[in-house]
Formats: sequence, C-alpha cells, structure tokens
Amino acid sequence: MSRKAQISADLLYAAPNALADLRWLTRFSAVDPILALRIGKKVIGVVPLLEVARAKQEGAFSEVLNLTEILTDLRKAKADAGIADIVAHLARKYKVDAFRVPDAFPAGLMDRCRALGLELTPVPAPFFPERVIKTPEEQQYIRAGNKASAAGFKAVERILAESEIKRGFVYHEGKVLTSEALHAAINRACLDAGALNTDGLIAASGIQGVDCHCHGHGPIRANELIVVDIYPKMMSTGYCGDMTRTYLKGKASPEQRRMVKAVKDAHAKAIALVKAGVTGARIHGAVVEHFDGLGYKAGKEQGLYTGFFHGTGHGLGLDVHEEPSVSLRGSGQNALKPGMVITIEPGLYYPAVGGCRIEDVVVVTKDGCELLSKHPYRWEIA
Amino acid sequence: MSRKAQISADLLYAAPNALADLRWLTRFSAVDPILALRIGKKVIGVVPLLEVARAKQEGAFSEVLNLTEILTDLRKAKADAGIADIVAHLARKYKVDAFRVPDAFPAGLMDRCRALGLELTPVPAPFFPERVIKTPEEQQYIRAGNKASAAGFKAVERILAESEIKRGFVYHEGKVLTSEALHAAINRACLDAGALNTDGLIAASGIQGVDCHCHGHGPIRANELIVVDIYPKMMSTGYCGDMTRTYLKGKASPEQRRMVKAVKDAHAKAIALVKAGVTGARIHGAVVEHFDGLGYKAGKEQGLYTGFFHGTGHGLGLDVHEEPSVSLRGSGQNALKPGMVITIEPGLYYPAVGGCRIEDVVVVTKDGCELLSKHPYRWEIA
Repeated sequence: MSRKAQISADLLYAAPNALADLRWLTRFSAVDPILALRIGKKVIGVVPLLEVARAKQEGAFSEVLNLTEILTDLRKAKADAGIADIVAHLARKYKVDAFRVPDAFPAGLMDRCRALGLELTPVPAPFFPERVIKTPEEQQYIRAGNKASAAGFKAVERILAESEIKRGFVYHEGKVLTSEALHAAINRACLDAGALNTDGLIAASGIQGVDCHCHGHGPIRANELIVVDIYPKMMSTGYCGDMTRTYLKGKASPEQRRMVKAVKDAHAKAIALVKAGVTGARIHGAVVEHFDGLGYKAGKEQGLYTGFFHGTGHGLGLDVHEEPSVSLRGSGQNALKPGMVITIEPGLYYPAVGGCRIEDVVVVTKDGCELLSKHPYRWEIA
Repeated sequence: MSRKAQISADLLYAAPNALADLRWLTRFSAVDPILALRIGKKVIGVVPLLEVARAKQEGAFSEVLNLTEILTDLRKAKADAGIADIVAHLARKYKVDAFRVPDAFPAGLMDRCRALGLELTPVPAPFFPERVIKTPEEQQYIRAGNKASAAGFKAVERILAESEIKRGFVYHEGKVLTSEALHAAINRACLDAGALNTDGLIAASGIQGVDCHCHGHGPIRANELIVVDIYPKMMSTGYCGDMTRTYLKGKASPEQRRMVKAVKDAHAKAIALVKAGVTGARIHGAVVEHFDGLGYKAGKEQGLYTGFFHGTGHGLGLDVHEEPSVSLRGSGQNALKPGMVITIEPGLYYPAVGGCRIEDVVVVTKDGCELLSKHPYRWEIA
C-alpha cells in the first residue's frame, strides 16, 4: 500500500500591516494586500507590481512573484480570474494539495478557492504558535515601543508639574488642562520616539478612568486619579509598547492612596511570580486574591464594572493584544515559556475613588522575568 | 402554497478600526473585535464588557449587548462556546435565517457558524455599496484629512526653502537633509492637524521616487525630483486625506520641467473630465492618451516600471484605497455618481528624470466636481 505524501502549505492573504502573522512571516511592511505561501521553510510572496521591487529589497521572502502579471496571464484564459485563481495557479506550480489558512483568512476568498477544488482549512489562532516566543531582536523592538510610552509619561509629568490648581481644576499655561491636551502631548512625545499611537491612547481622569477603555475627554479636575495608558506602535518595526501609569494632580485622599498602593503591590506581586512554567491563570489568581484580601470587591455601580474586572495581562508584539493571556484563560498546557513577552497590569476602579492601573512589560525567563519597560511610579504631583 | 418570509441579516465581526465597513456602520471606534448585526435598519452591537458603556455612548447602535456576559451564559451549557455560538444565539433571538457577511469575514468563524447549521454567504466588496457615496459630513472629514496632508507639504516647503545646497546635496540646519527628516517633519505637522500617518507616507527622491511605493530613505540630492505623498488618517473620525506634490531643491532640467508640466496638465485634464455619469476608465484613458501624445511611453527599466503604470485614482474615505476605481477597472455600470469621493493622481516615472506625481481629491457632482483638497503646486525651490 503506497500513498503519495501530501504537500501542505500555509496560505495568507492580507495587508501585512493589518495581519501580524503575515508581517511576522514576511518582515514586509505594506498596506495593500499580498499573498504569501509558506512551504516548508520557503516563503513565497505574491505582491502587486508596485510592491515587487520593495518586497525583494525589504521583505524576508525566498521568492517574490508579481501578482499583477500573474493575474494578467490568467485572464487570457479566464476573463474574471481573481485571487482564488492565483491560489489555484500556485497550487499547481508548487504541487500543493492542502492549505492551512489563518482563522482570519477572508471568508469569501476561501469559498472561491474551495469552489475551484482547493482544500483550505482555517486554523484557530495562534496560526504561527512560534510567534509567541520573541527573539532577542523582537524584544529590543518592544523595548523601543515602551521607550515611546515612557516618553509620553514624561510629557504628562512635565505638564502636571507645571500646572496649577484653580477652582478645583488643573490649569496649564493659563488654560484648563484637558484629556485632549494630554493626548496631543503624548502623541508628540511618542512620534519623536519613532512611534504612532495607531490604536489611540488613554488619558482619562475621575469617573472616565473607571470605564477602563474610555480614552478621556474634557477638563481634568484636581485631586482626581488620571489613568494614562500608552500603547504605541514603532513606525520602523511595527512592534508595540504598552505601559500604564496613574497620576493625580493635587493631594490624594487616604482612600486613593490606599487603592494606588494596593495596585502597586499587586503589580509587584504579579511580576515576582512570573517565570517559565507558571500559568497566566496562577498569576491572575494571585492578583485577585491580593485585592480580595484587602476588601476590594468586584461588582457593578452606575452601569460600570468596579473592582478588578479585567485580565492581569496579555502578550505583546506586533499586536497590542497577543497570546498568551495572563488571566483565567491562561491555564493548563499554556504555561509561560522563556521568551514570551507579557504585560502585567492590575487595576482597581470605583466611581467614588477613581481608576488606577499600573502596567509594565516583561519577558519571561527560565527563573523569572526581565522588565522590557522602565519608568518611575511617582504619581501624586503637588 | 405559503412560505415563511426569510429574515436575512448582515453580520460583521472585526475590530471596527480594522474594518471600514464596520466602523462606517457603527460609527464606533474600537481596536478589539466586536460583533455587529444589521437587521433592516436596526444595528445590534455585541461588544466586550469593557466596551459596553462606551459603545452605548459613542456608537450608532440601536442596541448594545454584552458579549462577555452572553459567552459566560452560553458556557454554562457548552463549556467551549465561542463567537460562533453567540451568532447562533443571535440567530435564535432575532429569528434570522441567513447571514450576509463581508468577503473579509474570518474564514474560521464562518466554518464554525456553518458547522452549527447557520447559513452564511460572503458578499464580494463593496459590502455596503452605499458607503461609496459620502455624506456632506463625511466630505468634511475627508477635507480635514487633506488639510493634514497640506500641513505636511507646508513643512516640506519650509524645510526646502530654508535649506542650502552643498556638494550636490541638500543641507538643512547644517545637516544633510534626508527622507527620514522629511518624514518626521510631516508626521509632526499631520499630528498637529489631528491626523496620524498610520499607513506611512512617501517622501522619496531621485530613483526612489520612481519606485512609486518606496517611502524614501537617506540623503536628498539637489536638482532631483522629490515625490511627497501624504495619506493621513484623522484620529477623531478615522477618515483619510490623500494628496501628492512633487518638489525639487535647486534647478530643474528642461526634461524635468517638461515632465512635471505633462503631469500637471494630465491632472487638470482629468479633473475637468470628472462628473456624474463618466466612468473612471474614461478619465484614466484620457490621462493615458495625454501622456502617449507627448511621447511618454510605459515600459520597464532597471527592474522598475516606467512611464504611467498605475491607476489615475481611487475612492477615499475610511480607507485610503476604496471604491470606485479611476482606472481600466472603473467601467460600464460603475460610472461616477454624485457624492463619490475620488483621488486624481497621474504620474510619470523614469530613472533618468525621476518620479513626478500630483494628487488631489474631488467629490463628484452632477455637473463636475468640487476639490476637497487644496494646496499650491509650486515645486521648484531655489
């Protein structure tokens, strides 16, 4: 009984800058869609003619084909040939029997490929599980992203230090300080560090900081907690930073101080637990336990979730949110491995006190972890 | 014979900021995936708990459901319930028999929904054909995007005017001027105008400007054409600008002058042709004819495409490249309609002369078009 070995290939179709798996595989930055095929260790790129020269120069392809030319050729025989026909052409050319595609592969293209008799199987994320382990080079890229975040904090601290308090509001350079003004200052600081806040950023005070995805808007009051979460993307590499600090201009109340200390202690406790072999769920559990022990209950007030209601952290790389999860999800066989890069970001949120979150980024090592982010935790600015 | 009327719904699943159709439908800016269901005029959003409050406040939803809570509920009966099970739940809840999904819908999710007995049909783009017609409000957003582009040109012109020529290179503030320095100045100018160059930008001189998707790098020489293409995204609205100007520091050669004039004339000719009822192919044909008449042939030199080898323009909105196409593709029933917003961007590219592209944005009207971009065409800077 003999059976021909199946040749299976990974097939991706997207704008590399819109699909981290594709950018990771090809090291090619582009905003228009390309096809990529991985057969064994060979990576074949099929890119529009305008990108051919740049793909050869800048991408990590074994071979670059001209998508536009192939399509023109195919249309001689089939007037309405499209990307699916190119895939069929590649299947013939490279004798591929079956394609693995990412879960996010375009559904319409998959149907059209299947209609041409091709075998495509979507693979639930992570498509390239090896992406979760960051090379030393990738760790440096993430470190650079966090330097951009830290540049944003420096800008915020400078503004808060220069500000004065009048009638309960924070004033900077004669004008009431707003979340928008902080956004602008942070954006400029990140840009000067080579990064863009493509997914936005958070500088939210008072009750806005309790709704932990609110970006913040309007005037900032004295004596209110200001959550500043900066997750910029480096323009050169596509890798992200992700750090959070919480500030207050004026004088904190005892309850605010107690809460900020609880979060800082949870943050330190969580980081101390990180090492290869530990699960994300275990680290998250320790944070939950820590807050529970101090009487910080999770609940709901004024339509907002309160207490500690989000995960303790997540993977970070080309995407701001990647595998692995440092939460209940991160259990069992998903224990941390050396080279994984994760955020640690406990937080507490109550309408009467405000929101507080402190976030850093670490790379997991055999015996612990190493910080890839660095910035002081000074938060109360008189 | 009676037959129950089918209830069909549009189904989308993506991060709104990563899928223009979804952001357009929901007017909701978010970087994490959400589910959206359109049944008739009703738009139901199913969003993670962290986004519920903001979705209700900021999104254009008829109803906002809590994705996290629904999943928790479903997992009581089925431990590994996921997004597909939520879709099945929504199908039951709203009595939906069939779902239209965008071509870019995640293939894996589609397979899982189908495995649950749901009927999903990917619809080739455009998913919402009505998106191609821009409301007056959207036109204003695009105008604002182009103001950000124009702010970038002003920065470039200021730098070139302040620069001096030494040993064949352009020097600014004592240092040789580079594409990277122009990128930085443009990024800052766009940021101050409320926009980010999320997809990059082009400031490419000499031979780099001939490879018309090369972003540009390294020193800029005197007397070489510099293609500057700026397509920033407004942070507040997500709408883009897209304009190109071509510059030269020093003194242009007769051939450079002739080529820039040819492009400028093609640009004017094309804009004069735009009006409702005309096809993109017709406008593109006129540009090709214009260049042909002047002897500018398309070809290939040094591995680069030369002459005029790209489309004359494309739609512009939440995406930098949208429907309709102002090229051979834009034919037949795809004639321009009032409210469509398109770029007009003829260009010529030859290694011996350099690259030149001039791009503006117009909104199609019944009798012609109106410019949504505004900036002078001064290009030779002594």
